[in-house]
Amino acid sequence: MKAKEIMDKEFIYVSKDNTIEEVSIKMEESKRFTAPVLDKDMKLEGWITSFNITKGLREGKKTIEEVMSPVEEIMSINENTPARCAVIEASNHKLLSVPIINEDNQVIGVTRSVDMIDSMSDLYDIKVKKLYEAMQRELKGVSWDELMEASAKISTRTTGVKITAEQYEKNIENATFGEAIWATGGLEKFFAGLISVGELVTARKVGRARR
Amino acid sequence: MKAKEIMDKEFIYVSKDNTIEEVSIKMEESKRFTAPVLDKDMKLEGWITSFNITKGLREGKKTIEEVMSPVEEIMSINENTPARCAVIEASNHKLLSVPIINEDNQVIGVTRSVDMIDSMSDLYDIKVKKLYEAMQRELKGVSWDELMEASAKISTRTTGVKITAEQYEKNIENATFGEAIWATGGLEKFFAGLISVGELVTARKVGRARR
Repeated sequence: MKAKEIMDKEFIYVSKDNTIEEVSIKMEESKRFTAPVLDKDMKLEGWITSFNITKGLREGKKTIEEVMSPVEEIMSINENTPARCAVIEASNHKLLSVPIINEDNQVIGVTRSVDMIDSMSDLYDIKVKKLYEAMQRELKGVSWDELMEASAKISTRTTGVKITAEQYEKNIENATFGEAIWATGGLEKFFAGLISVGELVTARKVGRARR
Repeated sequence: MKAKEIMDKEFIYVSKDNTIEEVSIKMEESKRFTAPVLDKDMKLEGWITSFNITKGLREGKKTIEEVMSPVEEIMSINENTPARCAVIEASNHKLLSVPIINEDNQVIGVTRSVDMIDSMSDLYDIKVKKLYEAMQRELKGVSWDELMEASAKISTRTTGVKITAEQYEKNIENATFGEAIWATGGLEKFFAGLISVGELVTARKVGRARR
């Protein structure tokens, strides 16, 4: 996934000749706390946030040019940068949004933290059942019931709380990956549990084949 | 992980008697686009964003009370709510920040999207090597070299590109979970690949034990 795939397609931009008043209304209406200042060729000339606007209004300034941050101070990200890097960059700088530029240095969008969360929380929302289905496809010749049986056994062993295969199946029916890693105490532990399940059913499968 | 663990500890709050001018300065200095309006007992009375402030300044309003959103319109999250739910709630409502309340209905913090990204991107930053180490711990009696050998074999089979165990080990040395799921085309595929590796080494281990 590339940076351009997680950007805000309805981003707003302003010109340095705009008045602070008109830009403040535009930002309120579009609910955007930040906006790039672009020239006629869509090239970056500056950046404004609501803080520049409130300060400008208080001090009686007139145009965006008087209050914007200069282009030198603005971090931008190329459209083809991996989305992951864009997310980490923005997070490291505690930035709410970052302009995305194309090869011609034109601003084509803005990534916002809320959009990043959307895209990241998709991962957390993947159903655990989907992972089990992928596991079953991979472990050819293992039935779903065998998989649930092995999972219940591993879970009972790890947590000390007895659980049946039926209960286990019901539990994973709606559980998400996010819930599972939080419940097991982290990605490595969640992952180790699944590997144990895979190991148990594989050992049985190999045993069966040799009998 | 609970909502209170991902909240902004340096959150600002204001009172409805504060002037719009002083609050605008406070928000600029602390770089906060939003703030809860609290009474003397730290209970929520309203919510302001930079949009309320710019509108208030433009229209010559005086106090926060004149421009704040009323308490009925504000979503808040209990401190003990799972962080995952807080993240998803905020993301669904496209909210930049949400107040966190304790059992006594007092506001004890605010979760901000930038802090959520921090906490979520931690997951993406986990090294793939750590997952392999967890896998090796789980599959007792399998050596690291056997694991790398099996991984190189599975990778060659899946991608069609020949890779040695040494190259594989070098690849995972610095790769993160985020990179791995993006590179393999999703969580399920990444996970299926690891299960295949686990299956291959387990089958060999079982075979060895029976010989």
